[in-house]
Formats: sequence, C-alpha cells, structure tokens
Amino acid sequence: MADAAHAIRSMQVRGAPLIGVTASYGVALMMNADTSDNALVDAINTLGATRPTAVNLKWALDKMHALLSATPVTERCAAAWEATYQMAEADVETNRKIGEYGLAILQAMHQKYQRTINILTHCNAGALACVGYGTALAPIYLAHRAGLPVHVYVDETRPRNQGLLTALELREAGISHTYIVDNAGGHLMQKNRIDVVFVGADRISARGDAANKIGTYLKALAAADNNVAFYVAAPVSTLDPTIQDGLSEIEIEERDEMEVRTVWGVSTNNGSKTSSVLMVDNSTPIANPGFDVTPARLITGIITERGVFAPANILDALLKD
Amino acid sequence: MADAAHAIRSMQVRGAPLIGVTASYGVALMMNADTSDNALVDAINTLGATRPTAVNLKWALDKMHALLSATPVTERCAAAWEATYQMAEADVETNRKIGEYGLAILQAMHQKYQRTINILTHCNAGALACVGYGTALAPIYLAHRAGLPVHVYVDETRPRNQGLLTALELREAGISHTYIVDNAGGHLMQKNRIDVVFVGADRISARGDAANKIGTYLKALAAADNNVAFYVAAPVSTLDPTIQDGLSEIEIEERDEMEVRTVWGVSTNNGSKTSSVLMVDNSTPIANPGFDVTPARLITGIITERGVFAPANILDALLKD
Repeated sequence: MADAAHAIRSMQVRGAPLIGVTASYGVALMMNADTSDNALVDAINTLGATRPTAVNLKWALDKMHALLSATPVTERCAAAWEATYQMAEADVETNRKIGEYGLAILQAMHQKYQRTINILTHCNAGALACVGYGTALAPIYLAHRAGLPVHVYVDETRPRNQGLLTALELREAGISHTYIVDNAGGHLMQKNRIDVVFVGADRISARGDAANKIGTYLKALAAADNNVAFYVAAPVSTLDPTIQDGLSEIEIEERDEMEVRTVWGVSTNNGSKTSSVLMVDNSTPIANPGFDVTPARLITGIITERGVFAPANILDALLKD
Repeated sequence: MADAAHAIRSMQVRGAPLIGVTASYGVALMMNADTSDNALVDAINTLGATRPTAVNLKWALDKMHALLSATPVTERCAAAWEATYQMAEADVETNRKIGEYGLAILQAMHQKYQRTINILTHCNAGALACVGYGTALAPIYLAHRAGLPVHVYVDETRPRNQGLLTALELREAGISHTYIVDNAGGHLMQKNRIDVVFVGADRISARGDAANKIGTYLKALAAADNNVAFYVAAPVSTLDPTIQDGLSEIEIEERDEMEVRTVWGVSTNNGSKTSSVLMVDNSTPIANPGFDVTPARLITGIITERGVFAPANILDALLKD
C-alpha cells in the first residue's frame, strides 16, 4: 500500500484515470495484509492524501470504502481485488468510448477540410496515463487506425516534460507528430497550423470548469482567440458535482521545486547514459503550481464515455448511462 | 566582422538593442581592414542576414550604410567607430528614459495598492540584452533603487531559458524574484498574483503589433483575460512604420531545433561542472519558431524613450523628439 501511495505521489503513476485504479490497487494490497476496519481507513486516508487535485483518486477511494466497509472482514480481500480488476476493465472501455466520440469530431473536421487534421496536445493523456488508450489521445489512436490523416503538435509540458511521453507513444504508434516548447502553441494557432486542441482533465466542476496540467489555460485562451476548437476528454469520474466555481474551489497542488530545477536527458558527453543537470541554481527561488483551471467559457466541448457535452451541460453526463 | 555576425546569429549577443550596437561594431571592425565600397556593402549584407526578426539590426545597419557611403573612403574607419560609440551611448540614455517612464507606472500602482507590486517578465530584456539597464527590466531597476517594493516573476522562456539570465541579474541587484516555468503565468494571473507584465520587443508595426520572444502572446492573452496591465518596453528604433499588420507581415525566424533538444546546467553527478543533456531524442521531429506577434489590442501601452503610447498611437513617437 505504501508503494502505491509513493507511486502516485512521486508521479511514477500519473494521469487521472490511472491514479484511480492504482489507488484501489493500493487498497487491495493493504487487504492482503490486514482486512480490519482500522487498516481500511488507514489505507483510504494515506492514499487519499497523495494528490489533492485529481478527483478520480477520491472517486475510486470513496467507491472502495463504501464497498469494503459493507463487506465482512473475511471477504474483504477478495472483494478488493475483484473491484480493482473491474475498475481497470471499466477504464479500458471508458477510454475506448471517449476515443470513439472524439474520432467523430476528427472525422467531421476531415470531411470539411479534406486534408490532414492538426491537433495540439498538452501533457500526456495517452496510454501511459491510463489503463487503456488514454483519454485525450484515444481519438488520435482511433483516427490513425481508421486511416484518417492526423498530425499532432506535442507540447513539451514543463516542468515534467510529459510531452516526451506523448512523443514516445505517438512514435511507437507510427503517428505523425512534432514536439514544441510550451511557448509555441499560440503562434501556431495564429498561423492556422492547429485545427483542434485535445487535453485531459484532473477535475471538472459542475459548471464545466476543468483543472488540468499547468499551462492548459494558456492554450485554451489562444484557441478561443483564434477560433480553434478546444476539447477536454475525460471520464465521467472526473466530474465533481460538489463544486461550481473551479477557479476558487479547486485546490491547486504546489509541487516540489526540484521538478523545475532538474532536467533529465541523455548525457551529451557520454552518449548512452541517462543523466540530469541542475538547470536552475539552488539559490534562485521557484514557484511550481502543478495545475491550472480552464474556465468553461473557453471549452468547446467535454468528451466523456457518455458523449460530448457543452461545459454548461456537463452534469447531464451523470444522468445518462 | 565575421565574429560580430557569428555573435549575433548564435545569440551570444542577444536583445534587440544590443544587436543593433553589435552590428555597427561589426561594420566598424570591417572598416579597420578595408574601407572600400565593396567591403561596406559586404559587411552590411552579411550582418543584415543574421537575424530576420530584429528590426534594430536593420535600423543600425541602414544608419551606418547611409553615413559611411556618404563619407570619403579615407575617413570611413574613424567615422564608423565614432558612430558606434555614439550609438552605444545613446542606447544607455534611451534605456534610462524607458526606465523612468516605466517607473512612473509602477509608482502609480504602488500609490494605489500600497503594497509590493508583482511584475511578470518574459525572456531577458535587462542589462545583459542591452548596453545599459535594459528595456523591460529598466523600470524594475529604477523602482528598486527608489525604494519601491517590487517582486518579479521570471518566466523560464524555453527553449533558450533566458529567464536564467533575468534571475541572475535580479539576484546580483538584490531584487526579490521567483523563477517559474512558462506554463505557470496564466494561473498566477488568475490568482491575482501579478499586477503588471513588462516585456521587450524585437519589432513593432505601425498599428502597434509587437513581435517578441515566442510565448509573449500567450502571456498577453492571459493578462487581458485577467485585467492585468501588459506593457511593451522598447526603443523607438524598434518601430517599423513600413508594416501595418504584424501578424502577417513580420517574418518569424525558425531557429535551430538543437535549442529545444539540448538543455544546459550543472552536472548533478559532478557538482561544479557545466554539462548538457539531450532531452529530446534526435528521432523526434521538432518545430522551433523563435518569436510570436502580440496584437495591439492586447497591449496596454508601449513604453519608449519618448513616453508611453497607446499601441494605436505608436507612430506619434516618431514625431516627438
């Protein structure tokens, strides 16, 4: 259980959906050792404190807590593993459906423009962040498989450079892409080189504000300023109906400043060795907010496993099934 | 002369004002060796081709060309050095005046809020980019000297990380500052942690559009969205009255992709040694536009050595003296 908590906190496991599944896996691991009420509450609390912004974490833990506290102690271990397995299976299915709804958007664009569709992504919401295809990248995988010509501009996503993960995924899948610094996306939109932005989300408020990786808001502003479609792709479990105003009510995690100071790569002196450099001197003060909130007014649509919703109507996704 | 051209092209010398002075220095160096018409034209053309976006380069070279082609061959060398010296002196005075006009803006804010004024900067437009105090940083130096409490949020400014230079300058000057990734500025504005943005410019069109380091446009969008003042600080020589629409008419330099791939710092294995890592694999395609254009509508004012102008009225700066 401590391993699962560490994996989430240190971002060895990242991406909102995968965090949820990993948290229930952590609960199941604890049940292996101790199925008492105390152990259950301890696991829920420890895992729940790892990442304040990701609502899927809370969603998965609430679900596990409700299930297991209503289960006799002798049956808790088996029930915890069964629930974790189902959650992982459901995640794959959820992502497939998100991918299909997103694919329909790309197909409509291709129908209209009759050329390669250029997509901008921020952070990594692909297979490496989820159990299955990912959320924001799922439509891109399905489009590529369907023979639709797509090109992906991959935001670097400082400070953790998750763009490197996205580029790796896209390369493995044979999908055409270009890596850019986070500063470049606005300019590309001004030059009509982006048709649509796909991002994930860590939490979505009742009125449709979306918390996602720091810098997402800047791309949403640029998309709105250049009439570029801006879609958030996220499972219904990302919705938090208990909050309205995402800007004031979503807690934004301040992360370790070492994420900004240190950069990893391959040593240019020793061509095959992974190495890091301290880019920002230890005497330079740093702030490192991990997320920002994109207001609903900048979002074209929210792609969920239950369809595409206008941000203002996102609560309708809870009613459908 | 080839040394000066190399210094500009490789960004050993950077910052629009300093590029202009370095270019005339390059012409003067050429005149040391050869004062013929052919040598003059050769120097002007070679230096002019180094950086397409910076208009000060063209301004300085046009001035040198007009002066020297009207000067007898035997007097060209002395004239070239005298003109270069005067240009450097004038740059110091220009920056001091920009600093004073900018200081008045900060003083008015301090008068109103009665607390520390929080400033966001992008790229480095300080002493390291200019002959004197710098442009965008000049008001900050003068405010600090006048005892006005200021705090500077320093954008990292990928891919070249000029924020490291700004942080270094501010540390040396004892000015309070925080280094942030380029993704963070929008969030800080949403949280009311920024009062004003100061940036430099490489070229300003007749209608007040400003080309500056890539990513400036994204911060201008965020400033407008959060009612944060957004000032461009630049000498009158940055004005290009021959173009109206900065977005379509200013050529944007596509720079070497190695700027994005490679990151420099201090080796974390060998604590004192400067070292670089290849962060982005050579097989990942990269785009690296060096600048973007901020439309006039997003700019609160342009601070020049002749006063602060609304972008729409920036041509008035040419009439004043």
